[in-house]
Order: sequence, then structure tokens, then C-alpha cells
Amino acid sequence: MSKKITKRSENFSKWYNDIIIHADLAENSAVRGCMVIKPYGFAIWEEMKSILDRMFKDTGHVNAYFPLFIPKSFLSKEADHVDGFAKECAVVTHYRLKNSDKGIIVDPDAKLEEELIVRPTSETIIWDTYRKWIKSYRDLPLLVNQWANVVRWEMRTRLFLRTAEFLWQEGHTAHSSQNEALEEAKTILFIYKKFIEDTLAMPVLCGLKSQREKFAGAVDTFCVEALMQDGKALQAGTSHFLGQNFAKAFDVKFANKDGNLEYVWASSWGVSTRLIGGLVMSHSDDFGLVLPPKLAPFQIVLIPIYHNQQEYKNVTNELKKLANNLRLKNYRVKEDYRDTHKPGWKFSEYEVKGVPIRLVMGPRDIENQTVELFRRDTMKKNNVPLDNLNNTIDTLIVDIQENLFNKASKFNSENTFNSDDFEDFKSKILQGGFVFAHWDGSSETEDEIKKLTKATIRCIPLEDIHEPGSCILTGKPSAQRVVFAKSY
Amino acid sequence: MSKKITKRSENFSKWYNDIIIHADLAENSAVRGCMVIKPYGFAIWEEMKSILDRMFKDTGHVNAYFPLFIPKSFLSKEADHVDGFAKECAVVTHYRLKNSDKGIIVDPDAKLEEELIVRPTSETIIWDTYRKWIKSYRDLPLLVNQWANVVRWEMRTRLFLRTAEFLWQEGHTAHSSQNEALEEAKTILFIYKKFIEDTLAMPVLCGLKSQREKFAGAVDTFCVEALMQDGKALQAGTSHFLGQNFAKAFDVKFANKDGNLEYVWASSWGVSTRLIGGLVMSHSDDFGLVLPPKLAPFQIVLIPIYHNQQEYKNVTNELKKLANNLRLKNYRVKEDYRDTHKPGWKFSEYEVKGVPIRLVMGPRDIENQTVELFRRDTMKKNNVPLDNLNNTIDTLIVDIQENLFNKASKFNSENTFNSDDFEDFKSKILQGGFVFAHWDGSSETEDEIKKLTKATIRCIPLEDIHEPGSCILTGKPSAQRVVFAKSY
Repeated sequence: MSKKITKRSENFSKWYNDIIIHADLAENSAVRGCMVIKPYGFAIWEEMKSILDRMFKDTGHVNAYFPLFIPKSFLSKEADHVDGFAKECAVVTHYRLKNSDKGIIVDPDAKLEEELIVRPTSETIIWDTYRKWIKSYRDLPLLVNQWANVVRWEMRTRLFLRTAEFLWQEGHTAHSSQNEALEEAKTILFIYKKFIEDTLAMPVLCGLKSQREKFAGAVDTFCVEALMQDGKALQAGTSHFLGQNFAKAFDVKFANKDGNLEYVWASSWGVSTRLIGGLVMSHSDDFGLVLPPKLAPFQIVLIPIYHNQQEYKNVTNELKKLANNLRLKNYRVKEDYRDTHKPGWKFSEYEVKGVPIRLVMGPRDIENQTVELFRRDTMKKNNVPLDNLNNTIDTLIVDIQENLFNKASKFNSENTFNSDDFEDFKSKILQGGFVFAHWDGSSETEDEIKKLTKATIRCIPLEDIHEPGSCILTGKPSAQRVVFAKSY
Repeated sequence: MSKKITKRSENFSKWYNDIIIHADLAENSAVRGCMVIKPYGFAIWEEMKSILDRMFKDTGHVNAYFPLFIPKSFLSKEADHVDGFAKECAVVTHYRLKNSDKGIIVDPDAKLEEELIVRPTSETIIWDTYRKWIKSYRDLPLLVNQWANVVRWEMRTRLFLRTAEFLWQEGHTAHSSQNEALEEAKTILFIYKKFIEDTLAMPVLCGLKSQREKFAGAVDTFCVEALMQDGKALQAGTSHFLGQNFAKAFDVKFANKDGNLEYVWASSWGVSTRLIGGLVMSHSDDFGLVLPPKLAPFQIVLIPIYHNQQEYKNVTNELKKLANNLRLKNYRVKEDYRDTHKPGWKFSEYEVKGVPIRLVMGPRDIENQTVELFRRDTMKKNNVPLDNLNNTIDTLIVDIQENLFNKASKFNSENTFNSDDFEDFKSKILQGGFVFAHWDGSSETEDEIKKLTKATIRCIPLEDIHEPGSCILTGKPSAQRVVFAKSY
């Protein structure tokens, strides 16, 4: 029973969905727009969480947990914020069901005085709490993160990329100065970049969002943007400098060293299970998922070849020894000795699931003291002497991780263009990729370009390129190129 | 600024609340019944999660994630289940807000066709999913756990013990035989017992719930029950044998080895942030929180004593060396070198927070090559030679953990009674503790005893005591004693 995967070149979107389903990452649930994250997909998220959580803690952040529900009036306190989230939120209006002759119904006597919103993000409830926590400059900075589920009632959903409920981390920090809050937002941006490049093996562009594209309630939004294999951009993480917007909305002041009261400065930042979608679209191929070793739930799978019970016993005995040795070196190892499935079925299964390294052993391998090693990223196999296996694996695990990053970087370079002419720009956007072009800085121009090409400004690159020019659409002066692309 | 904690003997409930607040574990939020788990409290939960998660994985369980929302019709599919949860659930009825002349209101045009319940527990949505995952005996057993937030709209709430939203893990397993499902429920019960006794240092009783007290939808509920310092029992974890109830409600069948279709057998089980409440009420004292070393966010705190900057420099230099050595041995260490707070203030702060070991060093300690060591559980201090510090700490960390367990066990023994006379029973229940008494097995008698004494059957002990007798209330025959207590 081989799992049929649509080719990328035929239908990228169907290819993506096939991989998510056949690699057992996730599926749609009975609740519109909400996904079930299956054990294999969740194990990837657990690895991501564990690595990123360590990076946050190493930079002085602590975890906490804030309520799932946000009173409606809280959302309304920051004007831009409510505009951004009001149109897509799940609203709790009652707190009881009851029996009736029509079956179980919502009890009309159990209506909440004030409706509760299932958090789409937690700035409001957290800043309401910070008012109690922050009195003096001595209480600052406050560097708090939470791992949580959030809900945004999206109308068109796609597994991992856009779902009504998703999992994420959201950091919310409070500072005594504008500069410190801005530095925090940038520090996190570079943690995201390092995490996504080193762990997910996905190269990203760092930049600032345009005012049109920034977070509802932010002064400035920084972002990391990745390029998918179909030439569309994916916003992989955002870090917001919130100024004093939420401090003012929730009246959070601190006494400075001179004893004067000032509003607190803030940042917030997040990445979500959307990263799993990005991971799939960055590295996978027509055979299925391709996983970087750092995130693979199983880095190495061991499969026996045999024709009778004696051979089965001999081969699995050898493989168990290898597996134990590899586990001692902290590799995540899967042994598949099931007699109910043929080796060919297993090969295909772990190819689809993107396991980085496959080791296969048969009776002849024992004689030769070798094992057949297959690497998923290049689909190449060779025989490795058993006495050199540990070294080979050590090198290969690093090599596969690097190879995926280099391959994705090469793809990015080949699909990153400059453009100075609008017809050329349109055709490049149509073809896909990051297009660096001049823009006059106005939201009207941004809207018009989007209308004409479906491209948005992904970011204003942080490295100041200092190359003045003329806007690709209006010809008005521009200080630097910005990055356009179609996006998820 | 010393934090005033009410004495246990004066007002146990106020004492409990003072500790939660002053030790910075949690606080009430602006949302009725929902708590904010503060960083220090959340760090304890993170330690619990990490240890328990490892125990689940070591016994073959995997994590996954299922939707927050449950369609109303799903809850209704298992009759007992909906009766158990309908009266206390948060109901989502709309998916959009809008602007009006009265401000932001719920958009009446965005009413859901079917209301969604915020999960109070996930049996229904999970068994609806399992229908797709389970076809054959080869797909079984399915051993899945999720770490999640759940909501039960409790009317009277208390931090950690009973909150509208809480964090927990819920395991949901599927099996091909009744016996295997029952064994799973018991396996988990004993994992809970081991975890709570070894890690939380809380002795527990294992038993079966009466039919009156079992989980809504279960055939049988197993539980671990702990005794708090006020003599009330706390249900610390439950593990349910669900029979085929949910398989029948959601039509989940598997082909057995003979190719015949059978309904799947199930278990479910959970422990929650309530355990933090149990931890507080088991070990803490009138000076504040007392933490077992295995769960303490900081196991050792280091504080300098000094009178001038030169002394500050010398002492902190020495302490930093100690701290680094202790970290190399994987201890969780906190160094408090703040010059803004006096040593006495710090002593009191970490006493209230229950840090197991405090090390204090002043200039004279450097001369003597010693450090002052204070252990929180006994409040005793002594001077330890620096060259013997590592050994002393190694021994002490184990000793404190054991001491807390032994102290709680002694308390349990001293507050566990047999009773064979109803007047005696009433007075013992009033006084507090576990009372082992005979019961005729009927729900009516159980209700009557509760009415007369406020005591409930905490569990029918698993060790079959085989000591027949007469019911404490009705005099009817009874096969074994059961455990009564007032409870949280």
C-alpha cells in the first residue's frame, strides 16, 4: 500500500496537503478550521518547543500562563488592536447547557454579563495583569513568555498554515525605556532567525513590516520571512515594538529612579505551529517529507532484511546492538522489526515520513560486517563498515542539516531578484520569488501594487542598503529597496 | 517588608491563599474563576510536566493535540458524560464582533450553526477522531496523551484547587480487549502514585471510586487520594476504565484477528495544576511554602553578607565559584547578589518561596573556609566546610525529599482511623482525616452519610482487605472497609 503523493510541479497545494496527511503530521477535525496534530507531527513541535524554550531561558525569559478568555471590553481598549482582531474571534456568551424537549440546548438563563473572547493573542489580558506587577523601575524589565493555544476565526483554512486554532508561544515584555523595548524586539528577531536557520534549516530575511502590514497595536513589527519552493513567501515569526500603546490602554506606569511616574514600554513576539508548514514547504520533495536531523522525531530508522526466522533473529540482534550504541550517543532511533510489513513497505513509509537516515541490514551484511545506509535528503545509499558506523553517522547528521540549509539558500538566491521596471516586476512576481524593488513609502502605492500583482511588501530589509532610487510604480523617490512577494 | 502569612491553626483556607500569593505562585485574573499562573508557580508545573511526560513516554505513550472546541452534539452522544459536564461549560455561540453605536458588540449575523463547547475534557472529540484512526487490531493499542487547557465553569473557585480554566494532561487509550484497557487504567494509576509520592513527596491512597463518585462516562474510576494538613482529602489524579462506552457512542470498531468487527475498549486519565494546590497543603508551614527538591524551581539559593564594596566583591566571587560547581552537578541554583535588598529581606523571601537550601557567605566564612547552610524543611542551619560542600548538598537534597515524604506519611498515619460506630465516625470525620469504615454498597447510604457528616467515600481501597463487617450507618453486611473523608 504505497502512499500516492501529488507532484510539486503538478499541484503544489495538493502536494503540500498530501505530505501533511501521508506523513501523519496532522488532519482536519470535525470542528471547522481546527486541526488534530497527530503524534508524529506533534513530536516535531515538541522538538521545536524544547530548543526555542531553551533559547528564551538562556536570554533571561521565564514562562507563565495567562487566561484563555479575554473580556470583550479589554479587546476594545486599544483601538487598532480591536480593529485587527474583532472580525475573526470566537465569542463565549453562555456558561451552561440544559435538557429540553429539543435535546441539549444552550441555557438562556446562563448568559454571561460580559462576553468573553477566546484569546487571539494575549496583549490585553497580560497588560491588565502587568498593572498589578509593575510599580517601580526595580520591577523591570519583565521578560515573560507563554506557550499556549490561540483562536482566530479564519474563513479559509489550511493545515498548519492557517487554522482557526493554533499553538504558539507569545512573549510579552515590559521595559523602563523605549530603547530597551526596541532592543528586546530585535534580540528576539535574531533569536528567531538563528532558530529557524540553525534548527529548521530555513534561510530567512529579517526586516520591518510596512505600516499597512504591521501587527494591530504595534508601533513597529519586525519579521522573519522565508521563501517556499513555489516561490511564495511565508511570514515565519514576528516581533513587535509596542511603544507605550498597551501601557496607556491599561494604565501601566512605573516610578522611575527619580520617583516620577512613566508609562511602561513594551514588546511582544511569537512563532507558531505554522513553522511546521514552512518546514514542509522548504525541504520536502515528491517522495514525501524531508526533515532536518535536529527536528526529526526519529533521526535514524533501522530495518532488517531476512528470509527465515533464524536470519530474522541474527539480523535484529545485530541491529539492536547498533541501535543501543546510537542511543548512547543521544540519537533518536526507531527500530522497525515488525514481521507484518515487508521491507519495501517500510522503506517507503520512512521516506514519506522524512526520516534522515535509514540503516538496513541483511544476512550478507553481517558476513561483510557492513550496513546499508540511505540518506533521505539526497536519496543516495552506500554500504558502511560497521566499525566506522558511529563516525559516519556523526558526520552525516551534521552534513544533512547543512545540506538542507545550503539547498534552501541556493533556491533563495536563485529566486531573489532586483527589479526597476514595473512590467519586469509584474512578470517576476508572477514567476515567484523575492523581488527587491523601490517603493515610495505610501500605503496607497502599496495597495495599488497589491491590486495589480497580488504581491505585498514582505519586509523592509534591516540592513540599510542606502541605495536610493525611484518607486517601481509611481517613480517617486525611494531611499532603499523593499522586498515584494506573493505570500501565504 | 515582610510578607504576613496567616497561621494554619487560625485559618487554614486563608493560610493557603496567603502562601499562593506571597510565594508568587498564582493570582486571580480579571476573568471570573480563571487564574494567572505566575512564573514561579509555572516553573513548578514545568518540572512536574517534564518528569511525568518522561514516565508516560517510557511506558510507550505519545503526545498529540486535539481541538479546543467540541461540537455540542458530540457532548450529547454519551448520556452520562453530558449529564456530568453540561451544567458547567463555556459555550461559543458567535465568531465575530462588530462596531455599533453602543461600541463593540457581538455581531448577530455571525451566529454559529452549531454551538461549540470549550473542552471540559476531550473524550468525545478524541473518540470521533479515533474512528478514523482505528480499523484493525494492528492499529491497537493506541496510547495517546495531550497536555492542554480545559474549562469547567465552576461557581466557587480557589486558586489551583478549583478554577474555571486549568492545565492538565489527559491520556486517551484504545485497546482490543477489556482486560488490556483495564490494565492500562491501573498501570497509569500506579504511575500517578509513584510520581506523586516520589516527586511531590505526597503519600497517596489508591482505590476505586464508588459509582456515585466515578467519572461521567466511565465504567470504573480509579483514583489517588492524598490527605491535606487540615485533615481533608484531595483527589490528586484519576484513571478511568471506560469500557466500550465511547466506542459505542462514536461507532469505533476494529477488525479482530478473525476479521470480525468489535467495539474498541478504552481508558482515560488525568492530573492537573490542582497538584500544585496539593503540594502546598501537604508540606508548607507558617513561614511559607516548603518545596520538595525535585520540584523546586531553585533548589539552592546563594546570598552574600558584606559591609563594603571590597567585601561584596570577595564574597560574591566565592559564591559564584560555588554556584558554578553546583550547576555542573545539575542543581538548579539561584544567586541573589542584588545590592538593593538587605540579606534579612532575602532570607525571608526565599523562606516564603520554599527554596530547599540557602547558602550564606560573609567575610568571616571566607576566612574559615565555610558557608552557612540553612535547610527550609527543618529551618535548621549550620556551618559547612567548603571542601565538603558538594557532598553535603548531595546528601541533603535526597534527605530533604525523604524527610518531607516521611513527615507527610507520619501525618497520614496519625490521621487515619478505623471506625465501627456511627457517633464515633461522626466525631472522627469532624476532627479530620481518613476514616476506614464499613459501607453497605448502596448509593442511598452513601448520600445519607454525606448529608449527615459532609464526608464522601474517597475510595474503595485496591488492596482487598477481606474483612467483612456491618455498615456504619445501616448495619447491613459489608465486604470491606472503604475510606471516608471530607474533601476538596
